[in-house]
Order: sequence, then structure tokens, then C-alpha cells
Amino acid sequence: MRYSQMFLPTLKEIPSDAEVISHQLMLRAGMIRKLTSGVYSYLPMGYRVIRKVEQIIREEMNRAGAQEIFMPTVQPAELWKESGRWNFYGKELLRFRDRKDSECCLGPTHEEVVTDIVRNGVKSYRQLPQNLYQIQTKFRDEIRPRFGLMRCREFSMKDAYSFDIDTVNADLSYQKMFAAYNRIFERCGLKFRPVEADTGSIGGSYSHEFLVIADSGEDGMAYCEGCGYAANLEKAEIARPEEQAVDVSSFLTREEIHTPEVRTIEEVCAFLQVRPENVIKTLVFSADGVPVAVLVRGDEEVNEIKVKNYLGCDILEMAMDDMIQAAAGSPRGFVGPIGIKCRTLADYSLMNLTNMVVGANREDYHLKNVNFERDFKVAAFADLRVVRESDPCPRCAGGIHFARGVEVGHVFKLGTKYSKAMKAIYLDKNGKEQYMVMGCYGIGVGRTVAACVEQYHDDNGIIWPLAIAPFQVIITPVNMNDQDLAAAAENLYADLSSQGVEVILDDRDERAGVKFKDADLIGIPLRVTIGPKNLAAGNVEIKNRKSGEINILSVEEVKKFILGAIRQL
Amino acid sequence: MRYSQMFLPTLKEIPSDAEVISHQLMLRAGMIRKLTSGVYSYLPMGYRVIRKVEQIIREEMNRAGAQEIFMPTVQPAELWKESGRWNFYGKELLRFRDRKDSECCLGPTHEEVVTDIVRNGVKSYRQLPQNLYQIQTKFRDEIRPRFGLMRCREFSMKDAYSFDIDTVNADLSYQKMFAAYNRIFERCGLKFRPVEADTGSIGGSYSHEFLVIADSGEDGMAYCEGCGYAANLEKAEIARPEEQAVDVSSFLTREEIHTPEVRTIEEVCAFLQVRPENVIKTLVFSADGVPVAVLVRGDEEVNEIKVKNYLGCDILEMAMDDMIQAAAGSPRGFVGPIGIKCRTLADYSLMNLTNMVVGANREDYHLKNVNFERDFKVAAFADLRVVRESDPCPRCAGGIHFARGVEVGHVFKLGTKYSKAMKAIYLDKNGKEQYMVMGCYGIGVGRTVAACVEQYHDDNGIIWPLAIAPFQVIITPVNMNDQDLAAAAENLYADLSSQGVEVILDDRDERAGVKFKDADLIGIPLRVTIGPKNLAAGNVEIKNRKSGEINILSVEEVKKFILGAIRQL
Repeated sequence: MRYSQMFLPTLKEIPSDAEVISHQLMLRAGMIRKLTSGVYSYLPMGYRVIRKVEQIIREEMNRAGAQEIFMPTVQPAELWKESGRWNFYGKELLRFRDRKDSECCLGPTHEEVVTDIVRNGVKSYRQLPQNLYQIQTKFRDEIRPRFGLMRCREFSMKDAYSFDIDTVNADLSYQKMFAAYNRIFERCGLKFRPVEADTGSIGGSYSHEFLVIADSGEDGMAYCEGCGYAANLEKAEIARPEEQAVDVSSFLTREEIHTPEVRTIEEVCAFLQVRPENVIKTLVFSADGVPVAVLVRGDEEVNEIKVKNYLGCDILEMAMDDMIQAAAGSPRGFVGPIGIKCRTLADYSLMNLTNMVVGANREDYHLKNVNFERDFKVAAFADLRVVRESDPCPRCAGGIHFARGVEVGHVFKLGTKYSKAMKAIYLDKNGKEQYMVMGCYGIGVGRTVAACVEQYHDDNGIIWPLAIAPFQVIITPVNMNDQDLAAAAENLYADLSSQGVEVILDDRDERAGVKFKDADLIGIPLRVTIGPKNLAAGNVEIKNRKSGEINILSVEEVKKFILGAIRQL
Repeated sequence: MRYSQMFLPTLKEIPSDAEVISHQLMLRAGMIRKLTSGVYSYLPMGYRVIRKVEQIIREEMNRAGAQEIFMPTVQPAELWKESGRWNFYGKELLRFRDRKDSECCLGPTHEEVVTDIVRNGVKSYRQLPQNLYQIQTKFRDEIRPRFGLMRCREFSMKDAYSFDIDTVNADLSYQKMFAAYNRIFERCGLKFRPVEADTGSIGGSYSHEFLVIADSGEDGMAYCEGCGYAANLEKAEIARPEEQAVDVSSFLTREEIHTPEVRTIEEVCAFLQVRPENVIKTLVFSADGVPVAVLVRGDEEVNEIKVKNYLGCDILEMAMDDMIQAAAGSPRGFVGPIGIKCRTLADYSLMNLTNMVVGANREDYHLKNVNFERDFKVAAFADLRVVRESDPCPRCAGGIHFARGVEVGHVFKLGTKYSKAMKAIYLDKNGKEQYMVMGCYGIGVGRTVAACVEQYHDDNGIIWPLAIAPFQVIITPVNMNDQDLAAAAENLYADLSSQGVEVILDDRDERAGVKFKDADLIGIPLRVTIGPKNLAAGNVEIKNRKSGEINILSVEEVKKFILGAIRQL
């Protein structure tokens, strides 16, 4: 395409409301424009990248045996009531009434709709497995949309749903999708890592996220280079320490100490001259309205997702003052495990510790030299804290590393959560009714593109991988008024285009410096510069956007080089 | 693809709520499923057809120089208030509030959003023309969704918007789109006709609809085979008759006649023993709240769209009783032009008529022998009635014909309606601010597919044109348990697939009759049947779904035949 005819409104200034680099660069490179909070339009250059990612997704989903469908954006409330999510899903589910006063929502995901389709279309085990996917617009009414395409309200997602006769086959479907996702992100040219993850509001038993490595990523991951274990930080496990024999003779006498206005771990440590490792932090949560105390070592943080999953509750929140007072008989800051009137769980970090400091369940008092079993019991020890980089790998006990990433894909084993709620049943070989076993698999298309920019950019702009670049080549005649240069540029443009190469001809009457800056900003992988000196010798210059490498080649050689690079995709 | 693995839930029964054949067949052929009123999911077979139509649209839009973008479904109220349509657009615009209580709507069309994008991205005449298009989901909250994909609430539309420096260039953009639309529908294999049409709620000065010819179509058209004139029935013009010299001597004396309870044209004709051609029908309308009387010959029908366009009003409705009483001094049924207190327009059908019957503007009375000029005057004669097949062509005075069709595309000259309201301005060569001149161009993607089914089907099912068929070929081994047949089928399937042919292998363990019925229902253009007798002679049978033609060919010949047919696309 000719640059002069393109709708490519680049910006010189960094837009003030763009916090992350992908948002800044995609605005500056004329790829996206904001319509309203968390809602963006894709301009031609941005949409070309989206379409390329979609094409890779389609090819790999089809190759994995999935079939493409297209489900509606507007969904009726009834299905969501059937699945139970109408009430459970928060305000991110945008609900409204149509002109006939029917309750509807904008689909944030499509488990309900696809389960309805499949329960009506599949009667027998002979019709399974099925894996149906779509690339479709979702809406989630985020409370704080931010970071451009990273966390927007309206976004394009590839979502797939598998239906199997049993968990063994469902695991095969999951593995197929896992493999397909690896191929998809590899083909996009991204550095990424699949990590174990929490299942969140989608539910189900097990899930992996695909994180594109980027320091700016919202998600943290812990990974082990030894055994390959990798998990989202919120999910990353901590192994149960070995239990040591308790030396009861080392237990000191318990003391109650007056600690007026001493509430936080830091205040307690300073007042009592102890280290946080010697303090038990007691947090009271409301789990679906029931108080639960969680104990963790003073220098560790409770991981609420682990607590929630351990308890299997729907809603976990920090307890309000009245609940704390009722359970502990004392206000926040002086709560401890001895005599507390609720279920009490202890994190593994507390195993094998002795003579600890705890709240006394009495205002302005703490206890010293508190010991398990002698002074109190807990319902269980469990993995309830946030992982640290100094923790050992939960699988191989080697070292773990932390990295940050952007979640671009998520695969879930759903089990029978939706098929039971919505009666998605088939007849097995013996004519007996069985629930289908489901999985679901999502890729954020716009997010994948934004994550790519987070991963590949420099001070001058975006650096697209060849596979998803909006155009593969930009031809830059340094002066369009020089007839020889213009003719050479036109010839090369026509020649490459006719061979299927996606080329921009920068035919603008602009200085070479301006053209170079724009080419770098929009991130075209290969730039062919046509200047008078080189051309006089029958040569042109080709520059690799990523490596910065420059070669002077004959026109024929440059064509061969470009076609060779593209053939490798 | 293997039939046994496809999600293709065909139905034997005709679904009871499906009134039109496309709706019935697309449900039966497992192409679509209803989610809720006017909202459908596309199943794999249906979505394949959609994607093919989309691909043809993309290729032709790109070839015409348009650039693809993607705009949001959820739109902020502000832009609609700016254009003035927030109040003007009826209840089909689904309005709601998000969690932050901002007013939004689901986009039924995207003039506002695209105009906002272009006014921010284009500053100079050098950046024009631009033509931006998208293929995107629209929502129109129809009061009575019906006919499956024909009139649904959520639907996929290709919408394009052109921006030019002046009307001359805007006309060129319009012509390019007009030509592209012709190519698109031709390539889809449809019989269609572009017709002049009303601009409706989109507005603008001039438009064409593309109607796919089908007896079941909602739209009527009038066309002339002589000069090529074609128009939607609601738009079809009627030429002004030649004015004849008035022979005042033929005027009879006006008489008032008591006509108790005689209101309708039929009652008047019966009572007074006259023909409808001798009666003037007087209808009172409210045009933006102001009464207007429209006169038409008793045997003709007023075309309200013509009246609305003639008056240039926003809302035209039949007047309520109180408005009629105020203007005519009499109730409905006895209204006439003499002495009526409002603007009065007469249809061309009344020119040159004398001694007519009219309402007397007095309850239970009519007047006989009423004549223009002698008895009353009108503000104008104009083309205000519904066309008839007996009318002459308004261009060449030849004969016109009527046909019915399904509107699948619509191109509009918008002029400066939106650019003025939203200040879409550029600087011309002299540095002077000018309004951009716009056009907009829509294709209903799902409707195109449904219209195709309306046009091409028989008692056995759908007959897809090769260009948009979900699969091009279906291979039907009559018995999968016969190893020779199965092997021949597998070989042909592998061979054709590897050459890019889209093939279904019907590998189900079903009787041949069942397979044939399903192949006919889903409408695959070419069916290759592999049976023992033919195969023993090295042959297979190929059947053309459309013509019914059957040929027995060798396997090599059949491959060549299929590849030849596909290469012609």
C-alpha cells in the first residue's frame, strides 16, 4: 500500500493518559484510538496485526480439530440464572433490559451459550468429543480499565469449549489445546511461558495461563529451571516442610504481656524485642459469611486465593470488626489463636516453630512463649502464604525464579461445573445418561498484540515479529521527486507486491529522516532504502528493524532475501 | 473434514417458529441456532459460509482502496448527542448505563464513531480521500424480529464510510463502492439488482439498495428493462403527467349530498354510484406536529415516504382525530380540500381530472362535481403515491415490471450531514476550513447468506453456489464397512484436501439414502458417490446439486473436473 493513501495518523507526543509502553506506542503508531473508557477502535495498521494473530489462531485451532462458530454478544439472563452465575458474577457482567424489558447481558464469556448449543445438538457418545471455538467481542465492565489494550472493557477473544465423555478424554482435549496454544504463541514470535494458575470466576478444577514475558506485566510467575515447574505467583505452591520431632522440654512458660496500642507486627517486634519470624500473625476472614482464622508467620503474607481455594468458598473477605470481636473477644491487633471461637488454619511456615508471640484475644495484651498442641490446636496446616523467590521449588526442591508477564491465554479444566448446572447430558454406550466433561480455552487477541509490543520495542518504536507485522517491508525512496529513485521504488513495490509480500511504499514527499522515524515507530521488520548513491551502483539498502543490521544488496538480491525471510514463516 | 467429527446437528422436522424458507433450511441444516428473540449463533457449517462471504467482501473492498478497521460495539451517548441522533433514533437504539452510570448504546451503525476517528486523524486535503470499513456486530432492537437472519436484532454487517474533499470526489467514492458491491454479489453467485432507495434513518441525499431477487423478499422493486431504471417500490418515481388544457365549460355545478355514515372510498362509490377514479381521497398527516392534507385519486395509495421526503420533515404520522377536526372542521371520513385549514398537496394522479367527489368537511356530507381552481387550490402537485405495475417507466416511459427481493446492501451519499454536526473539517489547498463530504455503504453479511438460500433451494434443501458453499465437495461412500469403498473414499478425500479443495468425507455408518438426504439438505455443490459397481470399473459418480446432472467418471477425471470447477471461482 502507498503510505500517502493510508489512514495512519501517527502522533509525535506521548499521549498523557497512556501509562504503559504498548498503550503509548500503539496510540503513537496510529494503530488504536480510544472511544471511551476501556473501549478502543482499531485503525487499519492495528487491525492488520489483529487479523494476523487471528489467522494464526484459526489455523492452529483447526489443526487441533476445533470447529469455528460465532455466538452472540447479547445474551439472555435465563441461561446465566441456569448456570448460577447471574448472581455470582460481579458488576463486570453488564446487565440491561431490552425494549421488551427482557433481562440481558453483554457476554463476558460464553460457557452458558455454548453449553446450551451443545446440550441441544449432542445426544450420544458417538457425537463426542466436540471442541467449538469463536473469535468474538467480549465485554467486561471493569471498575478501572487501564493500560490500553491490556485491561479494557470491550475486547476480542478467542474462546474455545471442549465437551468430552469423561475426564480421561477431557484431559486429552486439554492437552491438545495446551499444545495448540504453545504453537500459536510460538508462531506469533513471542517469548512466553505456560504457568499453573487459579481458575477464578470461570471455575473448574485446574488451569494454565500463558504469560508473555515482560517486566511491565501485571502477572508475576515463579518458575524452576530445573524441573520446568512454573506457576502464577498467586497460585505458586510451597512444599510442606518436613515435620520435626517436637522437643517439649524447650517450651518456655507462657506469659501475658501488657502491650498498649501495640497492634502491627512491626510494633509488636519493637515493643517485645523479637523478630517477625517469632510472631504468629492471626487474620480473621469471612468465608461466605463464616469466620475463619488464618495463622501465618509474622514475616510472611497470606495468599487469599490459596485460602479461598482451600476452603472452597465463593466469597472470601477480611472480616469486619464485629465478626472479629465476636470470634476473638478482642479488637483487631490483639487477636490470637488461643481460645478463638472459629475454625483455625495455620500456614506451613509455622510448622516446627516454638515459643512464639501471639495476640492474647484481650485488648492491649499479647502472649509470649506460645506453643502448638500445648497451648492451642489448629484444624490443619496448609499452603496459605504468598511465595518468595527464596522458597524452594515445590516439585524438585531446586531454586525458583520470579519473572513478570502478561497473561495472553488461559486454559481451564472445567469438569462438570456447567454440564451439571445446565444438564448437558449424553447417552453412553450402555444408553445411560452422563454429564459431559468440559474444558474452556481463551486467548485475548488484542492483549496478545499489546504484550508483543511490551516485549519488542525500543526507544524509536515498535519492533514487530515478521509473522504478525502489519506490513513486512517498507520501501523508502529518500526523495520521491528524483525520477530514478521513484521509478526504482515503484518497480520494487510492484514486484514484491505481486509475489504476495506485504509492502508499504513510502511515497510521501517528506524528508528521509521523517520517513525513517515513522518506519521505526510503526515497526516494520524490513526497511529497504533507495538512495542515489547506492542506486547508481544498482544497489539498495536493507535494514533489519530488530537487529539494526544494514546490508547493501543488489535489487535482485534484496528481493531474494525478502522472499526467503517470508517463506520461513 | 470427516462428517462423523463435525458438529452438524441437522433436524428432520421443520421448526415451528420458522416462517421463511431460509430460516427453516438454515435451522434444519444445522447452520444456525436461536439464542433469544432475534439473536442467533452460527454453528460451524453456517459460519463457514459467513466467512466466505466476508472474504469476498474484504477482497473487493481492499481492491476498491478501502482500509479495514474495527470499531467498538458499545458506544458512548455523547457522540450520538453530537450528531443529533440520540433523540432522533427510535427504540431500535438499545440504550443502557454502565457500572459508572455513563450512558451508552449498542451500535446499530457507526457513522458517529468513524466520523470522530477521521476528524481527529485528518487535517489536510492531502490526507483525503479515505474509505474505512469494518465487518462487525451490530445491534438493532427490532420491535418484531422475524424471518431468522432476515430481520434479527444482532447481526454482522460490513459498513464502510468514505470521506472526500467535495461532492465530485464523493460521487467517485460512491461509484467505486457501487462497482465493488456489484462485484461482491456477483462473486457470491447471486441474482440481484441495485435499485434507487430511500435513505431512512441514516439520512443523506441519495442511495441505492442491492436487492437479491426472491419472491419471498420483504422489499418490492420496480424496474424497466428498456432503460435499466430500477427502484425500491417505496422510492419508485412516477413521472409528472402532461398538463392538459382545462375545458372550464365541462365543469358541472357543485352539489352537496347527504351521505350519512358513508366514509370509505368504497362506501362513497357505492352510495353515489361513481368509480374510485372520480373520487379525491383526502388524508391529513401530522408532519413534525403540523397538519398537512394530501390528496390522491380514490383508487391510489399515498406513499408516506414520498410525502415525508417532499416535506423534509423528521416525523410523519397519520393525524389524530383532534388535529383532523381542527383542520377540517369535520371528523375522519368526510374531510375534503375545500376550506381545509392546512397546507394541501395533490398527487399527480389528480392532474387533469374534473368533476370529482370530495368530502364536504361537514359530518355526513360529500360534494360532487368539484374542480381544481374553481373550487379550491393546492400548494403543489407532486409524486406522492405508491407506484403500480401499470405505470410507465419514469425515465423512458416504457413499461415497468415488479419483482420482490431481499435487501442485502445499501449505499448512501451522506453529504455533510454528519461532518457538519460533528465538525469533521479539513484544510483545503488554500488553508481554508471545509467540511468533509461523506458516503456510507453497508452489507448485511448474514442476510446475504439467508437471501442466497431464499434464491437457491429446492424441496430437498439448500443449493449453495460454489463460491460460498461451506464445503465444495462431499464424498459419499455408500458403505464404510466395505474396505475397498472406504479406502477409495479416504484416498480421494486426502488427495482433494491436499490440493486445497474443501471436502467433507461422509464416513458415518449410515445408509446411503440417509447420507444423500443430508448432503442435499446442507447443500454441498458437488457430491461424489463411491459405490461398488462403479468402483469395480475404476469409476465414481459425481452429481451436481444444482442441475441434478450425474456423471460417471474415473477417479482421475473426477479430480480434474473438481479442480477445474474450483479454479474458475
